[in-house]
Amino acid sequence: MKQYLEIYRKNLFESVIPFWMNHSIDTECGGYFTCLDEKGAVFDDSKYVWLQARQVWTFAKLYNTVREDPQWLAIAEHGMRFLRKCARLPDGRVCFSMDRAGQPKAIQRKIFSECFLLLALAEMYRATREEIYREEAVALLNLIEQFISEPELLGRPILPGARATRSLAVPMIYLNLVEEMDGILDEEDLKVKRESSIHETLAHLDPDLKVFRENLDENGIFNDLPEGRLINPGHSIEACWFLLHAAGRCELPEIWVTILEALQGSLSLGWDHDEDGLFYFIDADGKPPRQLEWSMKLWWPHTEALYALALAFTLTGDHSFEQWHQRIHEYAFTRFADEVDGEWFGYCDRYGNLTHRLKGGDYKGCFHVPRALLYTVKVLERL
Amino acid sequence: MKQYLEIYRKNLFESVIPFWMNHSIDTECGGYFTCLDEKGAVFDDSKYVWLQARQVWTFAKLYNTVREDPQWLAIAEHGMRFLRKCARLPDGRVCFSMDRAGQPKAIQRKIFSECFLLLALAEMYRATREEIYREEAVALLNLIEQFISEPELLGRPILPGARATRSLAVPMIYLNLVEEMDGILDEEDLKVKRESSIHETLAHLDPDLKVFRENLDENGIFNDLPEGRLINPGHSIEACWFLLHAAGRCELPEIWVTILEALQGSLSLGWDHDEDGLFYFIDADGKPPRQLEWSMKLWWPHTEALYALALAFTLTGDHSFEQWHQRIHEYAFTRFADEVDGEWFGYCDRYGNLTHRLKGGDYKGCFHVPRALLYTVKVLERL
Repeated sequence: MKQYLEIYRKNLFESVIPFWMNHSIDTECGGYFTCLDEKGAVFDDSKYVWLQARQVWTFAKLYNTVREDPQWLAIAEHGMRFLRKCARLPDGRVCFSMDRAGQPKAIQRKIFSECFLLLALAEMYRATREEIYREEAVALLNLIEQFISEPELLGRPILPGARATRSLAVPMIYLNLVEEMDGILDEEDLKVKRESSIHETLAHLDPDLKVFRENLDENGIFNDLPEGRLINPGHSIEACWFLLHAAGRCELPEIWVTILEALQGSLSLGWDHDEDGLFYFIDADGKPPRQLEWSMKLWWPHTEALYALALAFTLTGDHSFEQWHQRIHEYAFTRFADEVDGEWFGYCDRYGNLTHRLKGGDYKGCFHVPRALLYTVKVLERL
Repeated sequence: MKQYLEIYRKNLFESVIPFWMNHSIDTECGGYFTCLDEKGAVFDDSKYVWLQARQVWTFAKLYNTVREDPQWLAIAEHGMRFLRKCARLPDGRVCFSMDRAGQPKAIQRKIFSECFLLLALAEMYRATREEIYREEAVALLNLIEQFISEPELLGRPILPGARATRSLAVPMIYLNLVEEMDGILDEEDLKVKRESSIHETLAHLDPDLKVFRENLDENGIFNDLPEGRLINPGHSIEACWFLLHAAGRCELPEIWVTILEALQGSLSLGWDHDEDGLFYFIDADGKPPRQLEWSMKLWWPHTEALYALALAFTLTGDHSFEQWHQRIHEYAFTRFADEVDGEWFGYCDRYGNLTHRLKGGDYKGCFHVPRALLYTVKVLERL
């Protein structure tokens, strides 16, 4: 495994981070451009809040965990300033997208804009110890908790035929929030939150397939509808490493076996055994997925797998994780990583041909690639 | 062109219609199953209102224009009963989906559920002359007009950065509603509505590319953002035949040249000159489309092209339309039409490989294929 350390360091610090430093900073209006083509030219100057906040998090995290480079902190502060100035609506909600100048364009009836802003604030607090970031992060967590317990506040009508779906994304992101609030909230408080979200995430585990399913109905079962059968292998893999982190913090090693089996299950089921690569979506019963793009190969399930496998291998020494890691690494570095212009491409069809030559868009920014590379470097350094 | 007449008749009456008659009727709970696999087995028993209403329209249209087969009328009435019983919410809106029993599951902040219910009601009125259908169709048209003029009533917040987008889908569907309200509303009233929606549809025509673009901003220009550059070739082709119908009714032959050029433009730009088939989405400047599935080949742009080209050829005798028709026909009948189990498949990847083996889903039902076949048969019969 250690052979990868230098590859990932080089990719992170010489290809990925320079791409965003060189092309994404909007020095005129603030914030970051994220819709960047192969060479870094802007093809959409909208500001997508998930990606603004995630880029703040990435640069603050580099500053906090690699070295205190003032340039990294300045980039994080640049995005944070724009977000704090523009992203909150009068009712306190965080919008989904803005125009270049920061006027709100769209709002989702989901909690994720709030969640990613919280991650950015928490990491900025760790970087600067400025009290305002801590206060705003804590206030946002309260708001998010309110939305989780009363989802009708998000504005989506809950109709009688819909059988209130519980989405895997919610306890997963909450696990991530709890991890990132470490040192900000009281450890006893975090412990309670952590254990309940571990429990809620594990409720999505299909005991036969050993993979996390996306949706549970109100009775805690997977219904026999496309939503109940839906599996997002990348999400399932990401859930595994979120859980490994949380279980370590909770000293719950007894659930490690379950999580490691889920990682194996997610890879076996999610891998395209004919054409290679991880599918974007699959139906648990092999029925037609609702998503037209289900068979595409996206960059981020592969980045999540790279880190989850490096972590699983260092925890267990089990060579099956090493073999999977090698397979994912080869696929990802052949198809996605761009040695010429930096960063990674994001989207391939089933056969591994690029469908989009962009490096960033409305859902791809400076986040999954650097996070996975940084975390993998850290775990391999400890090996 | 006349060689196709028998092919389309046979496909419509021996393959497509029997598939829906045999597999889609829910005799227990009412309405239709539309999520049907290759052989007609149900893989999702939800009731999608667009497709419930469109199937009512199709069977009523067959009854009204082919022969007064009581079985067809009974099928249309079966769906209409379910829709009238279940699809309206207490506030008068029409939901987007229901569970099998007809409990509402989801509602869109769009007008299309209302529009397709109107089409069903109007066709049922023509079939039965039952006054209630006419009254409900007229009332729905008023509601739709109110939503078009005050879109905030649909519940989507209009934020200052969004520059109120005008979507091609709105004047297009309105053109279609006006066509289907023929004989129900007063002809003078229809004429005014028809001419204004021709005008509004033509505002989306890109004068250089000769193709309809999806979105205009509030100033009537195509902005340089993914939404302003977006082209949906199938939609653009469908707009052409809607306009040819409307222009004929308005005695506006002077716009025929414009429309026929737009049909040529839509085909030239929408066709995949490397792999064949019509793309689902393209960016007017060749920048990365936001849609992950942009390069897929869907059945419906091809059905719309089949009819638009048959119509354009009969109107003009221009053999370039005949050549395009042949090319589309070969693609569609090789990739989509299923001689074995009936109906058409719906979704291919860029290379023409099926990505889904379903015959119906949440957006594919008994509509585009039979409508295009029926209309093409009718136009070829007149040739």
